[in-house]
Amino acid sequence: MRMYDLIVKKKNGGELTREEIAWFVRGVCSGEIPDAQTAALLMAICLKGMGEREASDLTQEMLASGKTADLSAIPGKKADKHSTGGVGDSTTPVVAAVVAACGLKVAKMSGRALGHTGGTVDKFESMPGFRSDLSPREFADVVNRVGAAVIAQTGELCPADKKLYALRDLTGTIDNVALIASSIMSKKLASGADVIMLDVKYGSGAFIKKPENALELADLMVRIGERAGRSVGAVVTSMDVPLGRAVGNLLEMYEAADLLCGKGEPDKRLVCRTLASGMLSLAGMGTREACGEMIDRAVASGRAFEKLCEMIRAQGGDPAMLEEPGRRVYAPCRREIRADGDCRGYLTRMDTEKIGITAGILGEARKRPEDKVDYTAGILIAKKTGDPVKPGDLLCELHTSDSSALDEAERLYREALTFGGEPPRVPPILYAAVGPNGSVSRF
Amino acid sequence: MRMYDLIVKKKNGGELTREEIAWFVRGVCSGEIPDAQTAALLMAICLKGMGEREASDLTQEMLASGKTADLSAIPGKKADKHSTGGVGDSTTPVVAAVVAACGLKVAKMSGRALGHTGGTVDKFESMPGFRSDLSPREFADVVNRVGAAVIAQTGELCPADKKLYALRDLTGTIDNVALIASSIMSKKLASGADVIMLDVKYGSGAFIKKPENALELADLMVRIGERAGRSVGAVVTSMDVPLGRAVGNLLEMYEAADLLCGKGEPDKRLVCRTLASGMLSLAGMGTREACGEMIDRAVASGRAFEKLCEMIRAQGGDPAMLEEPGRRVYAPCRREIRADGDCRGYLTRMDTEKIGITAGILGEARKRPEDKVDYTAGILIAKKTGDPVKPGDLLCELHTSDSSALDEAERLYREALTFGGEPPRVPPILYAAVGPNGSVSRF
Repeated sequence: MRMYDLIVKKKNGGELTREEIAWFVRGVCSGEIPDAQTAALLMAICLKGMGEREASDLTQEMLASGKTADLSAIPGKKADKHSTGGVGDSTTPVVAAVVAACGLKVAKMSGRALGHTGGTVDKFESMPGFRSDLSPREFADVVNRVGAAVIAQTGELCPADKKLYALRDLTGTIDNVALIASSIMSKKLASGADVIMLDVKYGSGAFIKKPENALELADLMVRIGERAGRSVGAVVTSMDVPLGRAVGNLLEMYEAADLLCGKGEPDKRLVCRTLASGMLSLAGMGTREACGEMIDRAVASGRAFEKLCEMIRAQGGDPAMLEEPGRRVYAPCRREIRADGDCRGYLTRMDTEKIGITAGILGEARKRPEDKVDYTAGILIAKKTGDPVKPGDLLCELHTSDSSALDEAERLYREALTFGGEPPRVPPILYAAVGPNGSVSRF
Repeated sequence: MRMYDLIVKKKNGGELTREEIAWFVRGVCSGEIPDAQTAALLMAICLKGMGEREASDLTQEMLASGKTADLSAIPGKKADKHSTGGVGDSTTPVVAAVVAACGLKVAKMSGRALGHTGGTVDKFESMPGFRSDLSPREFADVVNRVGAAVIAQTGELCPADKKLYALRDLTGTIDNVALIASSIMSKKLASGADVIMLDVKYGSGAFIKKPENALELADLMVRIGERAGRSVGAVVTSMDVPLGRAVGNLLEMYEAADLLCGKGEPDKRLVCRTLASGMLSLAGMGTREACGEMIDRAVASGRAFEKLCEMIRAQGGDPAMLEEPGRRVYAPCRREIRADGDCRGYLTRMDTEKIGITAGILGEARKRPEDKVDYTAGILIAKKTGDPVKPGDLLCELHTSDSSALDEAERLYREALTFGGEPPRVPPILYAAVGPNGSVSRF
């Protein structure tokens, strides 16, 4: 086989066979295929597309390029979830706790975040003592005993994906739906769960801007997962506006605790309930409606919140800051951002990506892998898109340990907001759900 | 400037500015742009296209990346020609001699060929003693004294083109019209001629298969050359059938001598006359018709043939083999290929690329830069597309110094031929000409 022929075939709009894809992935891993040839193929894939069968084959071959998690020490079905990422997007603490409280095991491997928002592991690590580096045996033990565990993904899963992603990042070939789907799904399949629930974000704070593109990605990922024999579902949700009112590691953990106690923002509560009921339903525990009611009972009874604390304790962490509101710790430097004197009418648009970057400036995320995270850093949002605003109204509160970051953060946060005289049309938080066999229901 | 942004711009169908193209070419030469990024941009250019202005800018920047020939020691207009390559395609000895005989100076720098056909320099070097490595001063001296000289191109012209071509060859991105045009024209402009005549080939023996694509390339090259202030013309000619009846270095020199004496194949004579009259006309020596008659007189008087011998002598070669038909040297091993017993009707198709490969097997071309060429190797073609054929008819004669090559060459040559009961439609050798300001005349 010659890489040249694969490139020309795709350039002419052809379909790559399973054998060709397998040969390509092996060549990328071994280093035998020069980066220039891989880059040319990636660009041809971006501009000529890749079908479901090809994307599924690419997923399987990237999966086969590395180790896969062995969850055989955990009896019964194991569930996992994945979000394509956004701002204030910490649904995992809520969803994992409530699903585990309902009796479905959650075995979650999560990435650490680089860039403008923190990852799930960083949120849990904001609890003093929390360890995300459990051994496989410890991981299985916590899942079996508590019902849920969250650990940091190791580098051994899908090395082919790692190499391809680095090249895609260099060559402007990130945004192809088949490449995104196979990258995400190879890692999800490698993490070994039987039930996989996906949250695909669109909007100003997501890397996908249009809902129809997010739905296309969700649909393809569900099909790839089903071809691999897993139970997979997806929801497409809006990231035009930050989810909830908290951005930042500790602030989002506090918000998670509130949500598990039946409080908190309705938009975030709805997304969490939809993801959790989807997971339970995919695991065969009832209809989405019945599973939704199961969740409501787990929250009302306090079992869901108690499960989160139990999870944190099982991994060495201290949930006292969550259990006793009086012990919540906040950042030493805080600044209230208020509406200017000429600001009348409505908050009509939030550039959510910019708000994510603002949180990063305040210290919420790493810029380099070796950087330390300021767990207290973040933003508490007071006004969201659609809210009426008059001069002097509180827009948000910036939190940081680094007072020198406040001026730039304020400037950027203000830039992210647009005001107008007419109330804007705010899209509903839920756009669509993809169920078994790619069945799509729109909300 | 960031290469990433250039890639994404082109991927989205955008136009690169002159500044962006200049920055890109400098980065390719300096090695600062990783091959993977260059490859991604090349593929995006292939699939999204490049306009005339961009192709012209790319040509100019590749031209500026290296040295350019200084022809200031040669007074008056200097002409050059270029063929995109084919089989039996040695028009330069004929055209250069006849044009010089008519009083227009020809200063030609030519490439050595790799692959399935020999280059112009190899043809001249089949004359014993011929030197193609003249110094710039010797080159100017021969052009001034004799009216024409042919030397081998050195590596110093257009290093950016050399690097980009190597990457295109690796990544399946050869066949974009703007990339081809800027690659050819940067080298043609660097060689310093005022008048440039292009022969763009299409058909089974050319890298472009369809005449309309060849015309598109011819048109773009003429426009790029005119933007650079040169007088440029082009003809689009068929390479569906080998040009003339000789394939091979010495065999084609013999055929060139015949043509310059008014003999030889009508198709090759027509192409040579069209190219030569085009060059003279571009140089302002009269209409195409008047220049054509000037050429006929130079041939009839013997001046054209004598000019070829003079050119060879001026570069140290001995043209005796051309001057005295009795002294023509032929390869020691020859094999006549005759039509099979069941072969009745017409020769309906020649796979001309395969015939070129056959000549390569016989020893006519280098496989590696360090290989020696067998100047006597080649093919004398007896039957061409459209000829009636009956069992036992001579199809061709294979010439080589390596008898072990004959069996494979015969097998391949036979494979290249298709016979049928009906006479085929043979396209005329001339398809179109492109004149000043991109004016197209179809033949």
